[in-house]
Amino acid sequence: MIVHQVFFWLHRPDKDLQAVREGCVAIATTESVNRYSIGKPAGTAHREVVDHSFHLSLTVFFDSLEAHDRYQTDPVHLKFVEDHKDKWSNVKVYDFEI
Amino acid sequence: MIVHQVFFWLHRPDKDLQAVREGCVAIATTESVNRYSIGKPAGTAHREVVDHSFHLSLTVFFDSLEAHDRYQTDPVHLKFVEDHKDKWSNVKVYDFEI
Repeated sequence: MIVHQVFFWLHRPDKDLQAVREGCVAIATTESVNRYSIGKPAGTAHREVVDHSFHLSLTVFFDSLEAHDRYQTDPVHLKFVEDHKDKWSNVKVYDFEI
Repeated sequence: MIVHQVFFWLHRPDKDLQAVREGCVAIATTESVNRYSIGKPAGTAHREVVDHSFHLSLTVFFDSLEAHDRYQTDPVHLKFVEDHKDKWSNVKVYDFEI
């Protein structure tokens, strides 16, 4: 299974978090996705190795690399990036195979 | 649910990956853990926002913050850090609530 782990940092989280979150639900329910979860920073202890600074996490699970690649070019995904890219100051992605 | 997402970068992955991976299995099967997965970088396209440079991912799911906190002080976890910390050059952790 392929895990596509995304973290978003927003310019104006108070204003834009909900819209970006709704966009994440839209892209994570496209046909190529097996399952997904959306999260927020947890209230764990602040330690040097832990990054709590992101505003939103999106974890998308795919059955195959090919499904991941379909997701990237899905019109819903392309529209999400176009509609919301100005709202984020940074995005980090980790793709891993489990 | 609390997700504890860890990425490891090793000094000598060829030599040490298996031992660190086995240590991850040991800590991820302690009593506080709900479920876990261990991964390696996926063969997705290289894009600026995607970090494929880590050697090992560990995702640990907990039912509560309190379970996460028990995990951090579990003797098996403390021994894992002591036994293997010299093998990694970097560790990044993202804790999120889903």
